[in-house]
Amino acid sequence: MAESFNFDRETAVEQLGDGLWRGHIHSSWNIGDNPNGGYLVSVITSALSQVLPHPDPITVTTHFLRPGVPDADCDIKVEVIRTGRTLSTARASLIQEGKTRLEVLAGFGDLSVRAGRDAPLTIPPSALPPPDQCIARSGETQGVVLPILGRLDTRLHPDHARAGQLPVAEISGWNRFVDDRPPDTRSLLLFTDTFPPSPFSMLGVIGWVPTIELTVHVRRRPAPGWIQARLHCEDLHQGRMVESGALWDSNGDLVAQCRQIGLVMDRN
Amino acid sequence: MAESFNFDRETAVEQLGDGLWRGHIHSSWNIGDNPNGGYLVSVITSALSQVLPHPDPITVTTHFLRPGVPDADCDIKVEVIRTGRTLSTARASLIQEGKTRLEVLAGFGDLSVRAGRDAPLTIPPSALPPPDQCIARSGETQGVVLPILGRLDTRLHPDHARAGQLPVAEISGWNRFVDDRPPDTRSLLLFTDTFPPSPFSMLGVIGWVPTIELTVHVRRRPAPGWIQARLHCEDLHQGRMVESGALWDSNGDLVAQCRQIGLVMDRN
Repeated sequence: MAESFNFDRETAVEQLGDGLWRGHIHSSWNIGDNPNGGYLVSVITSALSQVLPHPDPITVTTHFLRPGVPDADCDIKVEVIRTGRTLSTARASLIQEGKTRLEVLAGFGDLSVRAGRDAPLTIPPSALPPPDQCIARSGETQGVVLPILGRLDTRLHPDHARAGQLPVAEISGWNRFVDDRPPDTRSLLLFTDTFPPSPFSMLGVIGWVPTIELTVHVRRRPAPGWIQARLHCEDLHQGRMVESGALWDSNGDLVAQCRQIGLVMDRN
Repeated sequence: MAESFNFDRETAVEQLGDGLWRGHIHSSWNIGDNPNGGYLVSVITSALSQVLPHPDPITVTTHFLRPGVPDADCDIKVEVIRTGRTLSTARASLIQEGKTRLEVLAGFGDLSVRAGRDAPLTIPPSALPPPDQCIARSGETQGVVLPILGRLDTRLHPDHARAGQLPVAEISGWNRFVDDRPPDTRSLLLFTDTFPPSPFSMLGVIGWVPTIELTVHVRRRPAPGWIQARLHCEDLHQGRMVESGALWDSNGDLVAQCRQIGLVMDRN
């Protein structure tokens, strides 16, 4: 993908040495004062894409150990664990100010290659009004400044855009890059992490919901256009929540599934 | 847990040096000629439990790179990535015959400690007949020898016990250790991986379904007694499937959620 798009330019990395890469964390992807987690993952997969022989991130697990530092360089250490014929596996660490911020374990493959048998099994998209009938995500509603909205056009289901109105913890909506960069399998990792936390629709403004760990499974290469997402929290117990989600492309094909464990902190 | 139980004795590890542990892979946990994946994960978490200061595996991601070797020793290399007040994070590799077989990235915490706010959100167990009205898992039905059945009592929902009878890819049933070892948070990692693959109920005998990656989130400490599980595959595309599942304890409380990406190979 040419670097004429914001996402490619602002996730670009250069190799410093064997297994060592350098990038720059741009504050244009911030949620409040912190870089968006999906953006940080995208910087890491920018390095992984150049190291591994397979083009598509099939499974990417990220542990968020510390917040990223905006407007600062980052080092990315990559260790290839195995390179097989159909799958390659690597770990990577994103380091700033001498401390590991994110730790990733990922498997890359080639989604254009058949790996076994099919079955009439998939997840259809939900009944979501078209983007122009959805509500643009707003920092005011969420109680946080959202510089990332200068990079992403995020529209929420009208029923999910207001805080604390629903009996369930669910968020759905649409996402695209504001500069019309087409989605690819790498950018799906970003799009799993660009909506308000799903408990927002049930509990209201809930402050910071730090992700402990996020795993994304990319299922298909996306068609051009909007990406649709639905995220829901099925279990919140003593502050620890598991949130699951799915993404579809403009054809309505499932393109990614995601699940994270995060914390729903008490309000101060 | 005392080593008077099979699971503890056969997942025991001893420290060889800084970050290096040794265990033994017992063929008593085999599925056919290969050690069960959940058993191999349990040997790794046996080492992690001794290294990390927190007692419960909150999130454990395993990449299955190569089959384990039964009746052979294994080395386990552990690297602690971060030790925080409420969470500690580590990676681990299980190595046999000089090759990494499994790679793990895990976060441990303390499930007896409140981490934030609650909500009336959880997943209730499904309507599963009691164990004595379910059907004991059988190697003949699955077309494979199952030494693991000497260690685990696994009962399947009568509707799910026959191959290829259902319009959906779903497996549910009960699990316990044959020697009455009570379940704990570490053994839940095993119990997420001890049922036939869920496409079995829809597609029939499907041969080997190798797991690429499995992530388990442990949600609560289990009460003594049977563990109930439900696993289903929602998307199978060109041989790659995502299977999600949930486990409940004898009180009906959700104790773990799991998701894996695996391959459904063509039959030879």
